[in-house]
Order: sequence, then C-alpha cells, then structure tokens
Amino acid sequence: MPIKKQDATRALELLEEYHRQLNSPADIQLRSAIERVIKIFKSKLFNALLEIQEFYEATLLDDSKSTEQKTLETMKVAERWSNSQGLAGPGGLAAASLARLAQL
Amino acid sequence: MPIKKQDATRALELLEEYHRQLNSPADIQLRSAIERVIKIFKSKLFNALLEIQEFYEATLLDDSKSTEQKTLETMKVAERWSNSQGLAGPGGLAAASLARLAQL
Repeated sequence: MPIKKQDATRALELLEEYHRQLNSPADIQLRSAIERVIKIFKSKLFNALLEIQEFYEATLLDDSKSTEQKTLETMKVAERWSNSQGLAGPGGLAAASLARLAQL
Repeated sequence: MPIKKQDATRALELLEEYHRQLNSPADIQLRSAIERVIKIFKSKLFNALLEIQEFYEATLLDDSKSTEQKTLETMKVAERWSNSQGLAGPGGLAAASLARLAQL
C-alpha cells in the first residue's frame, strides 16, 4: 500500500487505535511492545519540543540580546537541526523515509 | 526562567506566535531564520510519523505475519528508536534536555 502524505499525520493515532484493540490474552506481548514504541515516540517528541522551548526562552525572549544576535543564534539552531538525524536515527527507515519525503 | 513540563507541549505554538508578531522591516532576517527552524522541526516530525506509518503498515497490518513475528519486529523498532538520537541530534541541547526530562 503506498503511503499517502495525509495519512502520515494520523500515524500515531492509528497506532494507538490498533493498540487499544489488542484485548486478547494472546496479544499481551505485542500490546506491550507497541506501548513501548508509542512511549518512545512521545518522549522524543516531547524532548524536541523542550529544545524549542529552551531556544525560545534563551534566545528570543532575552531582551538583552539584539535582533542581530537573536538572528545569528536562530540560524545556528536551524543549521544544527538540519544537519542532525531524524527521530529514528541511524540504521532505521530514515533514509527511505527521507527519500520518499523529498518526492512529496 | 525554569522550564515547566506543561509549557513544552506549547513550545512550537509559542514560536509560531512569536514569528507572527515580527512585522517590522528590521526583523525580516530574524523572521526568516525562525521560519527555517519551524520548517525543519515540522519536516522532522513528519518524517518520524512517516516511519511510524511504515512500521504500522509493513508489520502490524500484514496478515501474513504471526503475532510472534509482529511482536519481534515491534520490539526491534522500539530498540532502534530508543538507541537513536533525539530530533536535535549531536551537539545540540539534547543532552541537557534529556537530563532535564529524566527529572520530570
């Protein structure tokens, strides 16, 4: 099944829905493994948001910094983020996803 | 200002709000740099969601795979994700954020 762009935004929701429906005792291990994937994703997302907040507070809200200084620091953050790996890191599906993303 | 857990979930929203208010011609470069940070964050988030969708479709929705096989593959995904770097990657604020996250 080809992956549609509009579906990806619902991916976590779909995964949580699938997880909720695993009520059979035979599924207990799968349920627990999926729980772990969901937890890790949310933790990483939260961590990324925390970084944005740190940058927002330490750079943009600091009135002692000039607009030029804020611009420079913002550009550095953008540079660092654009050079960093995605959420799933090395060895994952990242390369394939990025290639697909580029086609969207 | 200490970072509160409940604020981090609003971090992107706050950044977008700050960006919207930059209407002065003197802020044009800062506005553009912030736009870049927002765009990179969203692109990485989308990419991570795409990976979840790929896993969901290739593993969980594949009826030719047994529950044991699905469990094994899900555990592998969890393992890979938990070993991978966060969104911001090396050299960023990731280490500090993770340390802070651990205290929450």
